[in-house]
Amino acid sequence: MRIGVLGAGQLGRMLALDGYPLAHQFVFYDMSGNPSAGLGEVMIDPGNEYLDDFLSRVDRVTYEFEHLPVSVAETMAQHKPVHPLPRALAVCQNREYEKSLFGELGIPTPQWRIAETPTQLHEAAEALGCPVVVKSTTEGYDGKGQAVLHDPDEAEEAWDGIGHPRLIVESFVPFRRELSIIAARGEDGELAFYPMAENVHSEGILRYSIAPAPQLSKTVHEDAERYIRLLMNELGYVGVLALEMFETEQGLVANEMAPRVHNSGHWSMNGATTSQFENHIRAVSGLPLGDTSARGVHCMVNIIGQHGDATDLLRLPYTHLHLYDKQARPGRKLGHINVEADSYEELVWRVRNTASFLPGSPDFHCSLTRRR
Amino acid sequence: MRIGVLGAGQLGRMLALDGYPLAHQFVFYDMSGNPSAGLGEVMIDPGNEYLDDFLSRVDRVTYEFEHLPVSVAETMAQHKPVHPLPRALAVCQNREYEKSLFGELGIPTPQWRIAETPTQLHEAAEALGCPVVVKSTTEGYDGKGQAVLHDPDEAEEAWDGIGHPRLIVESFVPFRRELSIIAARGEDGELAFYPMAENVHSEGILRYSIAPAPQLSKTVHEDAERYIRLLMNELGYVGVLALEMFETEQGLVANEMAPRVHNSGHWSMNGATTSQFENHIRAVSGLPLGDTSARGVHCMVNIIGQHGDATDLLRLPYTHLHLYDKQARPGRKLGHINVEADSYEELVWRVRNTASFLPGSPDFHCSLTRRR
Repeated sequence: MRIGVLGAGQLGRMLALDGYPLAHQFVFYDMSGNPSAGLGEVMIDPGNEYLDDFLSRVDRVTYEFEHLPVSVAETMAQHKPVHPLPRALAVCQNREYEKSLFGELGIPTPQWRIAETPTQLHEAAEALGCPVVVKSTTEGYDGKGQAVLHDPDEAEEAWDGIGHPRLIVESFVPFRRELSIIAARGEDGELAFYPMAENVHSEGILRYSIAPAPQLSKTVHEDAERYIRLLMNELGYVGVLALEMFETEQGLVANEMAPRVHNSGHWSMNGATTSQFENHIRAVSGLPLGDTSARGVHCMVNIIGQHGDATDLLRLPYTHLHLYDKQARPGRKLGHINVEADSYEELVWRVRNTASFLPGSPDFHCSLTRRR
Repeated sequence: MRIGVLGAGQLGRMLALDGYPLAHQFVFYDMSGNPSAGLGEVMIDPGNEYLDDFLSRVDRVTYEFEHLPVSVAETMAQHKPVHPLPRALAVCQNREYEKSLFGELGIPTPQWRIAETPTQLHEAAEALGCPVVVKSTTEGYDGKGQAVLHDPDEAEEAWDGIGHPRLIVESFVPFRRELSIIAARGEDGELAFYPMAENVHSEGILRYSIAPAPQLSKTVHEDAERYIRLLMNELGYVGVLALEMFETEQGLVANEMAPRVHNSGHWSMNGATTSQFENHIRAVSGLPLGDTSARGVHCMVNIIGQHGDATDLLRLPYTHLHLYDKQARPGRKLGHINVEADSYEELVWRVRNTASFLPGSPDFHCSLTRRR
């Protein structure tokens, strides 16, 4: 089967690497004009001039990247099966739609308001109680358009800084940690859930994902599975979906979802029988899903900005190196390292050792390293 | 680093799949005119007209296939590092050189003689005692040129049937089973040994490889490691080497070696921390070797001649499917399935279940299934 992938970055690359052994072929369709890590055939078509050509070369379409015009996905869906369905894209591109959908399905979120003027932003901050997190409802590629208000009087400045006509204002959620759940849904509605991951960010970039998340209560995992099942069934979803959440004293609070394979699931390449990439391709191509259970405990360490010395990293017997063949640039995801261990105690030691060979890597702080 | 691979079949394909995550790029160079399972850039050049072009595109050269002109490898080695060294090719292309090298290094082999006439063949069969196995010293691509003599008087008929001017005559070795060892040697002489595999053939084709080989004595494994170490050091070998042996009452007897990744090591893709493919690429590109130990027990089941139904196979939670994207044809290797288990008892059951979905697959008979 010929799979067309919208986007040509590292996620598409890893989808292909896990899809070739299923005898699939891949064509990447890049609208950015700057494919970063494509493998094999990449069509660069920022103006959508060669859409027919692309569609004639593929049997199914999927994406590795959600910031693409919904209309393009909808056009494609008139000719070839596109999964996940374009509606999933539309929801993920708009924080208001996303939070509304969470609410409709009974998935807890932070309290939120919409602001269309600086005055409404001021009122929302007052009503919710500062600090509040302010974001544009829709987002460009650059991840800009966010602010934290510590006082309602900062509303005007934040409004000007973000420069967007419609903002979502969220109450700040005091959380113990960030968790994510990744699940796959097949064409026949079959579901498979990966163990949850604990995610550690630094400067807005994911740095570490530990899976299965340590010290996780059964109730929390069941809640997460219920939430993501509700979302996938509602969206008629086929493929892999990621749901990012905060763990709070009152239970899980949903933050956002990604309609694709996700950085917090990269551990599954070496830690689960079937990786998230293979399961996404299985789902999209109408095949049965594979086993998602974890063997041992794992931590994914992102390689950000600088490559480090591959020789040092490869000498560590418990690591798996995954490079994306991209040029180094500050803040850019260049690859990741999957670290495996038999116990969390051993994992902490191994992750610290691994990170010591990655220049600029932040200290490994997570629920395992906190004093109790 | 840009790696040039001589040959473009499934072994090259799997080398690339495990080499891309090290940020390597691959160019395949096919002299057969009929690349079967290439991935990415394949140069088809049966007449070696574009050798310079190929060499200008790569930093290192390796091969997935040993039946290629040694002179071509030697020419390449004058311009770019070629590993394993062309001498390894020369040895593996000639059963007489191979057996002589085994003998020089003290590696046990069956007794053997060279025959250059039907009369010499008759004499050799008498001297060694029938049955004897007769093979041409050099072999074409088709694997023809073998016979078994049950009586010296069959010499003339066998001579005519093989039609080769120089034959090697080997005494028949009564063996308990066939074993192989696979090892990797780095540029700096570092060595890494995979656990040995037990190999089950049917109609001259490998069908099953079980790793680690069950009921294997420590002595036998140590002997195997010693033999392959001697070979690699003697050949200044860099990359992965496979050595096939018979297990007899008197210990191991070497059969043949392959200067490349080997079908009996495919289990390592899912069963070892670092697969044979990754370790070959690491070695050839001057990187440190990875951990070769096995997690659990494994059986590689070859998919021969017919694909079977991928959906059935993918429903089994303990299997990993690896297809080569080749057209089905009787006797052709189309893919393999890695089956994993925690115990050999469970493995036998799982392999039988897996094989039941592969049309034409022979019954699973091995040391585990024999009555004691």
